[in-house]
Amino acid sequence: METIAAERKASKLATKELTYFLYGGEEMVLRKREIENAVISDPTYDITKYHYLTREELFEQAVKKSVHSITKLMPELDILGVFERHSLTSVIGGENPLSLHTDMFMPTITGQGSDEQQEKWLPLATNYKIIGCYAQTEMGHGTYVRGLETTATYDPVKQEFDIHSPTLTSIKWWPGTLGVNATHAIVPARLITKGEDKGIHNFIVQLRSLDNHTAMKGITIGDIGPKFGYAEMDNGFLKFEHVRIPRDNLLMRFSQVLPDGTYVRPKTSSKLSYGTMVLIRAGLSKFSFEMLSRALTIAIRYSIVRRQTQNRPGEAETQLLDYVNQQHTLITLLATVFGIYFVSQDTIQLYVKTQSQLNEENMELLPELHASSSGVKAISTNLASQGIETCRIACGGHGYSLSSGFPFLYQSTTPSMTYEGDNNVLLLQTARYLIKIRKEVQEDPSYSPPDNVNYLTEAVRPRNINFRSPQHQLALYQCMVRACVDRAATKVSQGEKIGLDYFDAWNAAAVELIQCAEAHTHYVMVKSFIENIDKEEVRNMSPYNQFILKCLSDIFSLNYILNKSGLFIEAGAIYGRELNEIREVIQSQILEVRPAAVSLVDAFDYPDFVLRSVLGRKDGDVYTAMWEWVQHNPRNKHKNGVHPVYKKYTRKLLRAKM
Amino acid sequence: METIAAERKASKLATKELTYFLYGGEEMVLRKREIENAVISDPTYDITKYHYLTREELFEQAVKKSVHSITKLMPELDILGVFERHSLTSVIGGENPLSLHTDMFMPTITGQGSDEQQEKWLPLATNYKIIGCYAQTEMGHGTYVRGLETTATYDPVKQEFDIHSPTLTSIKWWPGTLGVNATHAIVPARLITKGEDKGIHNFIVQLRSLDNHTAMKGITIGDIGPKFGYAEMDNGFLKFEHVRIPRDNLLMRFSQVLPDGTYVRPKTSSKLSYGTMVLIRAGLSKFSFEMLSRALTIAIRYSIVRRQTQNRPGEAETQLLDYVNQQHTLITLLATVFGIYFVSQDTIQLYVKTQSQLNEENMELLPELHASSSGVKAISTNLASQGIETCRIACGGHGYSLSSGFPFLYQSTTPSMTYEGDNNVLLLQTARYLIKIRKEVQEDPSYSPPDNVNYLTEAVRPRNINFRSPQHQLALYQCMVRACVDRAATKVSQGEKIGLDYFDAWNAAAVELIQCAEAHTHYVMVKSFIENIDKEEVRNMSPYNQFILKCLSDIFSLNYILNKSGLFIEAGAIYGRELNEIREVIQSQILEVRPAAVSLVDAFDYPDFVLRSVLGRKDGDVYTAMWEWVQHNPRNKHKNGVHPVYKKYTRKLLRAKM
Repeated sequence: METIAAERKASKLATKELTYFLYGGEEMVLRKREIENAVISDPTYDITKYHYLTREELFEQAVKKSVHSITKLMPELDILGVFERHSLTSVIGGENPLSLHTDMFMPTITGQGSDEQQEKWLPLATNYKIIGCYAQTEMGHGTYVRGLETTATYDPVKQEFDIHSPTLTSIKWWPGTLGVNATHAIVPARLITKGEDKGIHNFIVQLRSLDNHTAMKGITIGDIGPKFGYAEMDNGFLKFEHVRIPRDNLLMRFSQVLPDGTYVRPKTSSKLSYGTMVLIRAGLSKFSFEMLSRALTIAIRYSIVRRQTQNRPGEAETQLLDYVNQQHTLITLLATVFGIYFVSQDTIQLYVKTQSQLNEENMELLPELHASSSGVKAISTNLASQGIETCRIACGGHGYSLSSGFPFLYQSTTPSMTYEGDNNVLLLQTARYLIKIRKEVQEDPSYSPPDNVNYLTEAVRPRNINFRSPQHQLALYQCMVRACVDRAATKVSQGEKIGLDYFDAWNAAAVELIQCAEAHTHYVMVKSFIENIDKEEVRNMSPYNQFILKCLSDIFSLNYILNKSGLFIEAGAIYGRELNEIREVIQSQILEVRPAAVSLVDAFDYPDFVLRSVLGRKDGDVYTAMWEWVQHNPRNKHKNGVHPVYKKYTRKLLRAKM
Repeated sequence: METIAAERKASKLATKELTYFLYGGEEMVLRKREIENAVISDPTYDITKYHYLTREELFEQAVKKSVHSITKLMPELDILGVFERHSLTSVIGGENPLSLHTDMFMPTITGQGSDEQQEKWLPLATNYKIIGCYAQTEMGHGTYVRGLETTATYDPVKQEFDIHSPTLTSIKWWPGTLGVNATHAIVPARLITKGEDKGIHNFIVQLRSLDNHTAMKGITIGDIGPKFGYAEMDNGFLKFEHVRIPRDNLLMRFSQVLPDGTYVRPKTSSKLSYGTMVLIRAGLSKFSFEMLSRALTIAIRYSIVRRQTQNRPGEAETQLLDYVNQQHTLITLLATVFGIYFVSQDTIQLYVKTQSQLNEENMELLPELHASSSGVKAISTNLASQGIETCRIACGGHGYSLSSGFPFLYQSTTPSMTYEGDNNVLLLQTARYLIKIRKEVQEDPSYSPPDNVNYLTEAVRPRNINFRSPQHQLALYQCMVRACVDRAATKVSQGEKIGLDYFDAWNAAAVELIQCAEAHTHYVMVKSFIENIDKEEVRNMSPYNQFILKCLSDIFSLNYILNKSGLFIEAGAIYGRELNEIREVIQSQILEVRPAAVSLVDAFDYPDFVLRSVLGRKDGDVYTAMWEWVQHNPRNKHKNGVHPVYKKYTRKLLRAKM
């Protein structure tokens, strides 16, 4: 406890200033704390025994908390909008088992329902007269939406759709809120009318009775069972046996089916609703920042408190964070989490800009937004997911206990590598964009590519290179990414030249394509970091804060160069003989950041309640916390301290004749 | 199902031949299957509902299974020795909660007890009149054994030791079998006699009454609570309040305390018992092979069955394993798992050789064995742990379900990165050896270093390089590792030159030291792979099997060169312009292995029972398995299919006035 207090006192970081910056100002921080305090002081959200609960207990408590939030806390706090709702969920912790209702069911009706449909359904949903989910994924189909097999066949006589699961693989599988709670679902299904398959459309289907919650006729429904994490979410399955719904349960803002079965093609582009998906991806980058910054808070605080090995006679054992390899591991991750922070902010801003252009039917920014948000989602979730595990492992044995808080963070973060688009699939989409722009650049010398990819027209290694210069760093990335894009494009053309068809040529280059998308996205992140710390808000900060952010920027930028040095050398961006200099700059910047480490994680401003970690306690009183925590262990509460397995099994063994 | 059958039919691999090779002959495989069949046919080991069990249910069942194995199955199968015992545990699945008794308690008495002590304690242990554990780790001390705080103060009047936990951090924490089951423990504690601290020694302490299993006087004992995995093991805590034990409960093979309190220093070196630790580390490499090969069996079978995206009109969707990036991910891991296999075999052989030398008081091989087993343990467990997660993530959403079997594999494997020596600490030990040998080489021109490190005397890039030549590959590694060792050594000397003390100089170079140890160990693994497939046993195999092993060897060797290309270029081993050629060799070898993929994982010979995975079923009937599995979900078994949360919470929300 004294150690961490001393570290805080010695740190020169203006912690509060950084906190205000990260959350967008003092007012936002005060509001955040207001929400936190409301949760912390309400016994419904008590977490004392959280890590001891079974899957069923976790789920029940989560439903209880969710209902309590909707009916009591949210009105009291006047919480409106997706941003504050997520803040609240984030403080409460775990998953919100009713979240699909507000996050997917309602927005889909808003985005794709006709005016009449919105008028009918939204009041019901807003007032929780119904609880909705979004039942897209099937047992046999995830990322490839066009492959969904569920059918919605129109019957003009009854003016109804017949919703059906024709195969085992067409059973809906994974949707959250479906397993136990939802009364309704948006069901993407293959619309068939007049014998023709019109592709995937969205339908509203009632799943359970509003009287007694039993499944509606023709519907087999349930929970898909335990997962790696996500115990608080009722991910479900859903099988249709010719379920009938009225014609106007097809969401008809864009396409319609007339009473006689005539299919009316969409007039307006559905690209307008495309923004939602992008916003969710940008949100996942923000989410990656949150989860990794929590893990780092825990890991860095513990690495200050924990000591290992007496390296000099008569002295205390060395703090974990004073081992250079531990510093390297955790402080490069600290740089990474700031990198994720800045790029998530920029992606949200690009989204806002694009959206306002879209409202004027201008689609210019759309491809860039799509490419960049796909890449950023993939790389942010990859980095956060791996980073959290790295933090856990860096904390040794105690990291493996649920009480460390790490397992929960990892299990909640890692599925984001898959949902909202598998990361490899997303990176291939980013690659497609890069290859397309490269083609345009090559075919039209007057074409000027978007800012983030103008390395495709010019990328030069600077003379008299200075590895601490952000502009030089960017130039190195530009050379490297350009070479990666070139290599991928060449590989695709080679395939085409030897007669492969479009898919085979593309597929043969998949590894190179994913690599160029990764490289590009890292470049975008480095660029975002460098540009953001050059903005007025940062320039107005205390000089030391600016200095530390510059150190972190160097670490983020150079560490990737070092890790992927082969690619940079191959591209002619750097030489093998320069690696030692890069190593030295990284190590010297890490040493600069070391004394500010505790304040940097303090600046993330997570109360102990949110971290749920005996290792990450702000006061550093780790071992007391551990001892207190174990007092709640139900396994130790049996009569005379003797567990029932003794009488059932172990005693028999001890008394057996062997 | 047809797809996987067709793949099997088309594969040219002699699967059975490879299986016999991997397990050391037909006889071993038959014995393995005998054990498997005995377990599978015994209802005590039923796993139908395994993934649905709570932590408490898992633990109870595990104790039940363990007692049943000891009293019934093991005698019936005539199972003796650590190897077969582990095979049995491995088939039963999960952890064996009584394993510390046979794996640590008994071997420590055998290794460190005097003849009289062995005579007294071993019969009790062998016949399970007592159940022992090994209580070393404390809340505040893991890897650094010399820092343990528990005291054992000798009282010459009563001729007893007083065992005491003087601080919060000295509470024993983590030992398995301790939390619930153990009646006795080996307790490493600080021996104090005549006012002098003689360092850490091992004591036998009774923890629980043999009459009713309650804690002995002065002992506070219990389970430390839920972890990331290991639900079946009762990891425990143990606090001593001046607990008295007789003088002769100090294990006295090496050092003794006479009745009057005189301390007698060890005469014989305790290095003889050092072998056990090495054997455990070699065993962890084998364990890494097992766990990763299971994950690969699941991932590869599923990637054959699972299809995603219709890439050509009218054709079926593409099998996951036909995506080049998926091939790259899984087939490089397949190469890795063979790499782990060979090096674990070689480490065990080195152990045997060293042990027979040790029996003749020859310690020549000891440093090499120590360095190599430390590095191999670290790299094997790192690779397996990361590899299993890579497999899971490569299987998308379904990988995240417990029913995939991946989460269990990961959670059981990842702690091996920490236990038996934290991997970074172990790599630093390997580095210490490398730096030492380098120094000897430099100081004494006539010194001839051990085979695995003779690159320190000579390492040359071959002329007319052929990346498919194993000898050339090894030469490239030698250049690279040598450069890494040089760099680390230089960094240490630089620190010394600027006046850092020993620890600071060493610490400043920690990143480079860990890197050189990693590089060295990868080299050892590549060498082991190459040498093993050149042995008679492999040369007697069918040509196609040999060909596939050669492909895997190339992939294993070259993929690391590609991933760490910067290091190889920096060392002058390769040039940036050669990377494309390396990429092409890797990709062509992966394409060669692709048709044999299903047979390669079949050759690991895991019955479905062992895999516990709906995705990894041998018959490929994945979706049927998933549907059958979900029928067991207790969450769906409530009256009318309505979960209790409805009446408790959700109904209130649906009927609330909002």
